[in-house]
Amino acid sequence: MARFFVDARELNSDTLTLTGSNLEHAMVLRLKVGEEVIVCDGQGRECKCVVSDIAPGKFSLTVKSCQVSEAEAAVKASVYMAFSKGDKPEHVIQKATELGAYEIVAFPTERCVSRPDEKSLKKKLERWQKIAVSAAEQSGRGLVPQVIILNSYPEALKRAAQADLAILFYENEQANTLKAALSNVKFQTISLLTGPEGGLECREVEQAVQAGFHICTLGKRILRCETAPLCALSAVMYHTGEF
Amino acid sequence: MARFFVDARELNSDTLTLTGSNLEHAMVLRLKVGEEVIVCDGQGRECKCVVSDIAPGKFSLTVKSCQVSEAEAAVKASVYMAFSKGDKPEHVIQKATELGAYEIVAFPTERCVSRPDEKSLKKKLERWQKIAVSAAEQSGRGLVPQVIILNSYPEALKRAAQADLAILFYENEQANTLKAALSNVKFQTISLLTGPEGGLECREVEQAVQAGFHICTLGKRILRCETAPLCALSAVMYHTGEF
Repeated sequence: MARFFVDARELNSDTLTLTGSNLEHAMVLRLKVGEEVIVCDGQGRECKCVVSDIAPGKFSLTVKSCQVSEAEAAVKASVYMAFSKGDKPEHVIQKATELGAYEIVAFPTERCVSRPDEKSLKKKLERWQKIAVSAAEQSGRGLVPQVIILNSYPEALKRAAQADLAILFYENEQANTLKAALSNVKFQTISLLTGPEGGLECREVEQAVQAGFHICTLGKRILRCETAPLCALSAVMYHTGEF
Repeated sequence: MARFFVDARELNSDTLTLTGSNLEHAMVLRLKVGEEVIVCDGQGRECKCVVSDIAPGKFSLTVKSCQVSEAEAAVKASVYMAFSKGDKPEHVIQKATELGAYEIVAFPTERCVSRPDEKSLKKKLERWQKIAVSAAEQSGRGLVPQVIILNSYPEALKRAAQADLAILFYENEQANTLKAALSNVKFQTISLLTGPEGGLECREVEQAVQAGFHICTLGKRILRCETAPLCALSAVMYHTGEF
């Protein structure tokens, strides 16, 4: 069933009309009067709606029933990824959204090759958030992960450390496994932090230890910077009983 | 340390020379006499070598010591992916190699949009195998996953079912979790089968049940066809104690 995300306020009345990219999407789908669709507020509430009227450039929907989305993960997993080059951040945002990330946070580190200026960051953020919306629609989520850009690594550490569990994945760590870090611990929120193409500086890993992070391995193979967060997120979802 | 894959026979003597793409790679890396590199036979044996002589277009290495690679996963996980469009198969091959897949098998199903002919399949296979070699080098593996193309879905089922555990991931399955399928079972080999963009036919899932497959969910969110195998593989690696 087609899925649209709208501003939460639009779901306060019994009817709504699709606008902007939702309208375009509805036209591409050639929805007909009487067809059912799902409309979500992107914050976990979703409503079954029926197409009630179609006029040129206008899709009206009637809200039938609303409920809390059942597609959200029990644990809120935040993906903290260092800036990376090319389309890697987009890739991580799309896949992490499918896999059920609660939010996705990007930040610079010492070895980041990609150092976008403020103007291009603003553009990036807009594009990244759109990718999250689109991936949330396609994967049937009730929540659109917020994409957040932070200005510094210490800021990222401080924010990530507020979760019940904060884990940094480091290619030079061999002994501490994710499994050990997750076992016998109850957590409702978890932060998963990974470095850029060139890896994290030893000093940066030290800072994370000081901030209360667990430092874990993702196995004996070196993962690319865009593979590591998705591998970690998949494992956390598996561990917490999502599949 | 730079890593090269060569034919197993080349590692039978005390010296070897790099040729073809290995030679090109060595030149790009500007290796110097005395530098150490790893040379693998791609089947799990790896040797520490030293650059002993450089002449125009020639890199000679002396073998110092050989051992069984320690980067290979304890469990042999075979990724069975239905043909998909665009660069999705390449994506899965690259990431599955990083994540430690033992082999990657592609095959057609009813709803596959991509139906390459025999000639283009041969080309694809060559390219796909190169991607696996390159990803194995970069991720530090001792084994290059073999990429295999099968002609039919029944053939894929039959081959995959020979593993200790064979699992098919189906978006309409809700109750059976991967965790339940893996728990309290010992396995050395596992097959992970996923469908194409449009999903598997109900009938195809039935055939897999007949062939002895477990049918499992990957959670309440619908994963893209290129995300599902990597999510499953990550979870299996996590489950089997890789990280």
